[in-house]
Amino acid sequence: MKSDRWLLPEGIEEVLPKQARRLEALRRRLLDMYAGWGYELVMPPMIEYLDSLLTGTGHDLDLQTFKLTDQLTGKLMGLRADMTPQVARIDAHTLKKACPTRLCYIGSVLHTRPDGFAGSRSPIQVGAELYGHSGSESDVEVFRLMLETLRQSGIANLYFDLGHVGIYRHLIEAAGLSPEQQGELFAALQRKAIPEIEQLLGGAAVDKKIAAGLLGLANLNGDENVIDEARRLLGFAGEGVGQALDNLQAVAEQIKRCEPSIPLHFDLAELRGYNYHTGVVFAAYVPGRGQSIAQGGRYDDIGQVFGRARPATGFSTDLKTLIDLGDGEASAPGAIYAPHENETALRETIEQLRRQGERVISALPGDNSDPQQLGCDRKLVRDGKAWQIVTI
Amino acid sequence: MKSDRWLLPEGIEEVLPKQARRLEALRRRLLDMYAGWGYELVMPPMIEYLDSLLTGTGHDLDLQTFKLTDQLTGKLMGLRADMTPQVARIDAHTLKKACPTRLCYIGSVLHTRPDGFAGSRSPIQVGAELYGHSGSESDVEVFRLMLETLRQSGIANLYFDLGHVGIYRHLIEAAGLSPEQQGELFAALQRKAIPEIEQLLGGAAVDKKIAAGLLGLANLNGDENVIDEARRLLGFAGEGVGQALDNLQAVAEQIKRCEPSIPLHFDLAELRGYNYHTGVVFAAYVPGRGQSIAQGGRYDDIGQVFGRARPATGFSTDLKTLIDLGDGEASAPGAIYAPHENETALRETIEQLRRQGERVISALPGDNSDPQQLGCDRKLVRDGKAWQIVTI
Repeated sequence: MKSDRWLLPEGIEEVLPKQARRLEALRRRLLDMYAGWGYELVMPPMIEYLDSLLTGTGHDLDLQTFKLTDQLTGKLMGLRADMTPQVARIDAHTLKKACPTRLCYIGSVLHTRPDGFAGSRSPIQVGAELYGHSGSESDVEVFRLMLETLRQSGIANLYFDLGHVGIYRHLIEAAGLSPEQQGELFAALQRKAIPEIEQLLGGAAVDKKIAAGLLGLANLNGDENVIDEARRLLGFAGEGVGQALDNLQAVAEQIKRCEPSIPLHFDLAELRGYNYHTGVVFAAYVPGRGQSIAQGGRYDDIGQVFGRARPATGFSTDLKTLIDLGDGEASAPGAIYAPHENETALRETIEQLRRQGERVISALPGDNSDPQQLGCDRKLVRDGKAWQIVTI
Repeated sequence: MKSDRWLLPEGIEEVLPKQARRLEALRRRLLDMYAGWGYELVMPPMIEYLDSLLTGTGHDLDLQTFKLTDQLTGKLMGLRADMTPQVARIDAHTLKKACPTRLCYIGSVLHTRPDGFAGSRSPIQVGAELYGHSGSESDVEVFRLMLETLRQSGIANLYFDLGHVGIYRHLIEAAGLSPEQQGELFAALQRKAIPEIEQLLGGAAVDKKIAAGLLGLANLNGDENVIDEARRLLGFAGEGVGQALDNLQAVAEQIKRCEPSIPLHFDLAELRGYNYHTGVVFAAYVPGRGQSIAQGGRYDDIGQVFGRARPATGFSTDLKTLIDLGDGEASAPGAIYAPHENETALRETIEQLRRQGERVISALPGDNSDPQQLGCDRKLVRDGKAWQIVTI
């Protein structure tokens, strides 16, 4: 079966020169931008022991993670499917700073099943995380960094969803449902399937107010009035829900102040994909694409199991998605064609041009390719003892 | 077992900010340098079907490759342990150019067992490949690119080994040994264990001249006189060996012409690690370290199984090794500490500074960290309606 040896698995892509040039250019722009905001680059490993990789991250990530056996120890390892928990471990265990810590990262992650718009199993995850501050200001900083990431990528017509996973978590805790019932309710809520939610809550004999609250979540989406509605509907639910709404409102107001023109929606039932989040969550969308293209939020205390609980907030996205949606075009600058180097003057001329940032392609004896086929728009020709560049 | 949740598997490293800064800086320098020589970046996938990943690469690479099952197809996949065969596939199958093609790449590879000086299982492989030219000039171009890579990394006291795997291959073919005997001979030759080689060749009743030739290989190392000695010793062995020696000599002479001062050794028995090579091979060393730090050579026709045989030559190395051995120190420039942004003038000042390439860290309300702890050596202070930078 010679002919299909080259077939790549579904959702696994190779990146060819034209696309690689764009990815590399955007990669550098984003990392430089994060550095400008004080975020330091870290590089978590591709594989880790499974118990370390999946600690506190939830069932979905487990299913998305490829498993491997370590030949040296016999222990199970996982291929990273999400770098955020790895970065949290670096903050909690390795860096151990007392002051707020700002970290950013970029790298391949792998998923057992295709997801996202393009059905990829090999996104290039890029993101930033801020540890050690629990106020709304750090959520806002991270949100703005996500926004700036999308702008640098040249993506237009963005809109944003804001939510707070604490509201649902408080209600579900008060409802006293079994884990199976919780799972069913969660799924129904994501589909906003009102009759199904009613039936589930009725069947489980959940307290009427709490049931009304959970049912209400499915309708609590829209503009900022959603927060006031939620206060009325969920006023009974105690301090936890009230504080979550205060927090959400504070974040929304600060974002509006910095970025008055961006479309901000609220959705208190949208919890999908927020595996380890505990507070404010946010996601970015573009028209015509159901899935978010970047997402983040607060996930306090994920570092606890690694020895230190710290407030944490961050966002992440996929570099390949940004390139697909962005307007960038990184055309390669034309190269200079040089004869085969058999003298010092020519070699020195070539070296100097390369130092100046020019691309110089040396001819290879016996090869009769057209220099333009090699991407050259100029060539070096002898001019007495010196060498000159002339247009082809 | 809370306390060891953070333990990383042996040979798997995480890269913290100081080191990550150096890696990123060298990464950019190298990719820019390769672009200057006309090499275009490609990004092969982290995982592929095993039969595609290991085609034509030999047993060693198979043992070094982590295996995974694809849930979608049930087929076996492998985590890349070497990117060169992947790039060869891209050239042969995807790009399909007729003219010489220059490609470069950088990315994590994973090995089932630790190797290299630091015992790493997760090198960052970086390299360049030139397809479509079979002359010595392309081997020389790739050798010079390897040399330039090591120089850009700030590694001093380099020396180089040159060899040609065709010489050994021609002799072993003529010797008529069984695969087991070939394996034993290969291992003995790598250890230069003369008595063992003699015994093996005697036991297998190999033709006396060929046996003398194979035994002689163990001593064919040293300066350029080695090539003349080899011609005398192996003159009987026919055209193939003679052409290999001519080729090796041509490469060595061209290197000497461009780089008269570099120490060049010859070793006709060193074949370790050249899994898929067919012609001239070369490796770079530093004193006090037995293993090569960069290596490459010719590997014609690896693309055959993907539909097109092309001459190919290339080199690769490990970015982490380059950083360990290099003299670079990328200290982060001091940042500017800014009060929490609650006014437009301050926000605009910060945005402008970041655009100019400054790192600006915003204070977070409630955090009393010393700005110097956050890496700041200056701060923004109000001056009437404007904001000024003052030294801390």
